[in-house]
Amino acid sequence: MPKISEEQRERRREQILAGARRCFAAHGYEGATVIRLEQETGLSRGAIFNYFPSKEEIFLALADRDADRLGRLWADEGLAAVVHALVEEDPDWLGTNLELVRRMRTDESFRTRWKQRAPEAEERIKTRLEDARAAGEVRDDVPLESVGMFVGLLMDGLALRRAAGFPSPEAGTILELVDSAIGGRARSRTPRRTPA
Amino acid sequence: MPKISEEQRERRREQILAGARRCFAAHGYEGATVIRLEQETGLSRGAIFNYFPSKEEIFLALADRDADRLGRLWADEGLAAVVHALVEEDPDWLGTNLELVRRMRTDESFRTRWKQRAPEAEERIKTRLEDARAAGEVRDDVPLESVGMFVGLLMDGLALRRAAGFPSPEAGTILELVDSAIGGRARSRTPRRTPA
Repeated sequence: MPKISEEQRERRREQILAGARRCFAAHGYEGATVIRLEQETGLSRGAIFNYFPSKEEIFLALADRDADRLGRLWADEGLAAVVHALVEEDPDWLGTNLELVRRMRTDESFRTRWKQRAPEAEERIKTRLEDARAAGEVRDDVPLESVGMFVGLLMDGLALRRAAGFPSPEAGTILELVDSAIGGRARSRTPRRTPA
Repeated sequence: MPKISEEQRERRREQILAGARRCFAAHGYEGATVIRLEQETGLSRGAIFNYFPSKEEIFLALADRDADRLGRLWADEGLAAVVHALVEEDPDWLGTNLELVRRMRTDESFRTRWKQRAPEAEERIKTRLEDARAAGEVRDDVPLESVGMFVGLLMDGLALRRAAGFPSPEAGTILELVDSAIGGRARSRTPRRTPA
């Protein structure tokens, strides 16, 4: 077999991930059969599974990316950017994630793996929240873990609503209420800025 | 066929719904086959489908009940009771609801039917929110629809988290932050009471 460069390997990996994401979104996780993965990626099963040991690993690589992307957005541009990203995300892809909820509950190793997506992004968000609190932009009378939990519930709810095909609530309204919930002395009920 | 009384019919209907709920929770919506529904309800398919035209209608009758129960809780006892109910709800049953998210998005008549669950409960919640606002317990600078939407996102997020098997956040923490988000002049950041 001819050797291929690291760069080629990377390109091939991207090709698989992009095709698989389309395939999952179009057919759901269960419906993304090997034949369909071949069609969407334009690669043979041999090639695909040379890069990823299983369909599950392909899906988890995509989930890692999502978590990393949203974590970066939050850390770099604030919560408004995350809300906008979810409002614009493909509902089919959001729905695919929900297909695995039962699996997450009943398969502990899968749940653990899911929780460990993008650990660096989580670290960045934590730093962002600490900085925002130091600047008085996040309330200091509840633990930061509670702030993160609360925002997480809202984002999950938003993803669920969009996956179900309901019209998305207006991002500005969500952000205004989030700001009241978690905003600190520098911003509560004052002219709205972007919450942490 | 012998005639049975209205009371007997009602009892039979309850028996079907109770068994079907257990069956859906244990096997998921797709996994709840007719044979399993027969086993869990203790009734023949003939008897079951004499009361409900289809599996979908049984599921929707259960969804109506849930919506009605949570709506009543909110209207009669406040949001804290709803949060506690979700924290205590069977995660298997919560997960079953999520199985139908794709269907909701892709089947408009199903989505419409889902939205029309328990219209009276929705009316009661609206009245409750209007009363709470009149009493200064709900902020008056955002539309009540936005308040309802925000709480809905949080409850959906909580249901999703529990369905996925993650530990439930503490109800008191959620309620404290919700209160800050939607509470009115009579309560913002004062000793906590039960939010609307």
